[in-house]
Amino acid sequence: MHNAGNGTVIFDKKPSILSFAAVVGKKEGEGPYGKCFDEVEQDAYFGQKSWEKAESENLRRSVSHTLKKGSFKSEDMDFVISGDLLNQCISSGYALRSLQIPFFGVYGACSTMAESLVLGSMIVSGGGGSHILCATSSHFCSAEKQFRTPLEYGGQRTPNAQWTVTGSGSAVVGESSAPPFIEAVTCGRIVDLGVTDIGNMGAAMAPAFVDTVCRHLNALGRDISYYDLILSGDLGVIGKNIAVELFEKEGINVGSKYNDCGAMIFDNEAQDTHAGGSGCGCAASILCGHILPEMRKGNLHHVLFAATGALMSPTATFQGESIPSISHALSLEA
Amino acid sequence: MHNAGNGTVIFDKKPSILSFAAVVGKKEGEGPYGKCFDEVEQDAYFGQKSWEKAESENLRRSVSHTLKKGSFKSEDMDFVISGDLLNQCISSGYALRSLQIPFFGVYGACSTMAESLVLGSMIVSGGGGSHILCATSSHFCSAEKQFRTPLEYGGQRTPNAQWTVTGSGSAVVGESSAPPFIEAVTCGRIVDLGVTDIGNMGAAMAPAFVDTVCRHLNALGRDISYYDLILSGDLGVIGKNIAVELFEKEGINVGSKYNDCGAMIFDNEAQDTHAGGSGCGCAASILCGHILPEMRKGNLHHVLFAATGALMSPTATFQGESIPSISHALSLEA
Repeated sequence: MHNAGNGTVIFDKKPSILSFAAVVGKKEGEGPYGKCFDEVEQDAYFGQKSWEKAESENLRRSVSHTLKKGSFKSEDMDFVISGDLLNQCISSGYALRSLQIPFFGVYGACSTMAESLVLGSMIVSGGGGSHILCATSSHFCSAEKQFRTPLEYGGQRTPNAQWTVTGSGSAVVGESSAPPFIEAVTCGRIVDLGVTDIGNMGAAMAPAFVDTVCRHLNALGRDISYYDLILSGDLGVIGKNIAVELFEKEGINVGSKYNDCGAMIFDNEAQDTHAGGSGCGCAASILCGHILPEMRKGNLHHVLFAATGALMSPTATFQGESIPSISHALSLEA
Repeated sequence: MHNAGNGTVIFDKKPSILSFAAVVGKKEGEGPYGKCFDEVEQDAYFGQKSWEKAESENLRRSVSHTLKKGSFKSEDMDFVISGDLLNQCISSGYALRSLQIPFFGVYGACSTMAESLVLGSMIVSGGGGSHILCATSSHFCSAEKQFRTPLEYGGQRTPNAQWTVTGSGSAVVGESSAPPFIEAVTCGRIVDLGVTDIGNMGAAMAPAFVDTVCRHLNALGRDISYYDLILSGDLGVIGKNIAVELFEKEGINVGSKYNDCGAMIFDNEAQDTHAGGSGCGCAASILCGHILPEMRKGNLHHVLFAATGALMSPTATFQGESIPSISHALSLEA
């Protein structure tokens, strides 16, 4: 691999995504992609006694499906790279505790699936490991409790609010001659244009997404015609429209090539999800449940997957801070 | 580089630590290593309006010293890898926002300095970048507020409690023929022996440290006589004694070769710090303020630095969970 500057690394020896799975909650299972997921759990608690333990159980199941689908045992994994939205990333820490795989915890908010795959593909390409498990999760109830208000409070959601996805995705990056491959990656920079409205995360994150995509295209000397699909993480409907406008300012007409996992995962009208989905599990479950299977089937050839994350905390918001955002991108090919 | 199994990666082309710095608070400046640090700030707020912003400012200054000491500009850095203890790692996110360096957020609790260096050295060795900035921070007041009780509450500290270090460390990993080099790394596994006493973190983390050191020695076919110093992150005095006992059970007599950053950083009697220091900034500031300079001077030749972290959160503790711990190790040579 070599560094092409400005956060982009190009792989001569392209890592492959060997196995992947997504597990989601009831509402996600009722959405437009409900049939794509490996498991849809009807119980919001996933059989556990708290929302946090439910999220951990969701992640544990997704990892279990991924290992099983690839005929792997946990001891086949050189490393696991995982993180989530919960304080101190406890969904990942507790979910992966029993597996005994050397563990790198990451924090990229909702960009975590991409961040873990970017790091995992660099380790594989450099020879540091041959099987890296990458994983993340989110849960509507644990996120509402931690970032907004307790569910019992019954707070009114703003029209531009997004709905945190109850879901998890995981994938094994390794060496194989079978697609999908990770051809190049672009690490996000922290972008903060001063948005302070935590009810409108799409507006905060859209500039980070456009920054990463533009740096990616520049580093590789490409225009967007190279890709069948450019997919942002979870900007939602409002953030997606802002991204389209920001691309236009850069002279890029994304047209029908662009979509957003947050805009895709729910039927926002019928499911009352306002601006769409969000959370680490949103981009992760769309990637592992829909995009990677479509690439294996040959229906998608070149996909630029750029998950997006907002790096604020409630404490920072209470102190008047704006929302720093980030987006990490993977160029996938089949 | 190649993976020697069980989390250990050995570098054929050894990355070097090109520049490093540590910035600490007043109490740390009054401790036994007070003269080693690049800056000692007397104001607990670091001129800011909140403890969280103070911690960010501390990290910002440490990064600034590291870049300046190496005659680097921020644009010379291919990536920055950073994380901290605060919810959503806001110390790192806000500190590094203005630098515009492609950013990987990590969460390894107090093991973060080692985690970032392990990942950074793998990226450099694999060719993914030539200059990787690794950084972390902690602050006594932001940590007490978040993990324990508000300072204003005046809660009594248990005899086995540790004192979170107000400090930060940062280092640039890259290619150079000048030592100190990173010769091999061992990624931690999550180890949880069921300790639930959050007033005794050393007891929770010691088994993870011993697990990592034993895996490291096994993978490299070495005994501890190879090293001048084996240094744990912040087990404190109680955890250090537990680690010595656990090593004995493995048939390893660490003798005078072993020390712990948490046991070193304060004069526990005179400074009333009970079992010693803790926090991401503890291992980071001892590494960057004392160990790396000693290696450059030729006073230390082979050091195994294994920072330790406890991956619980207050929410997990309130739900009755035990404390999962981790330790990442770097074999440094001069």
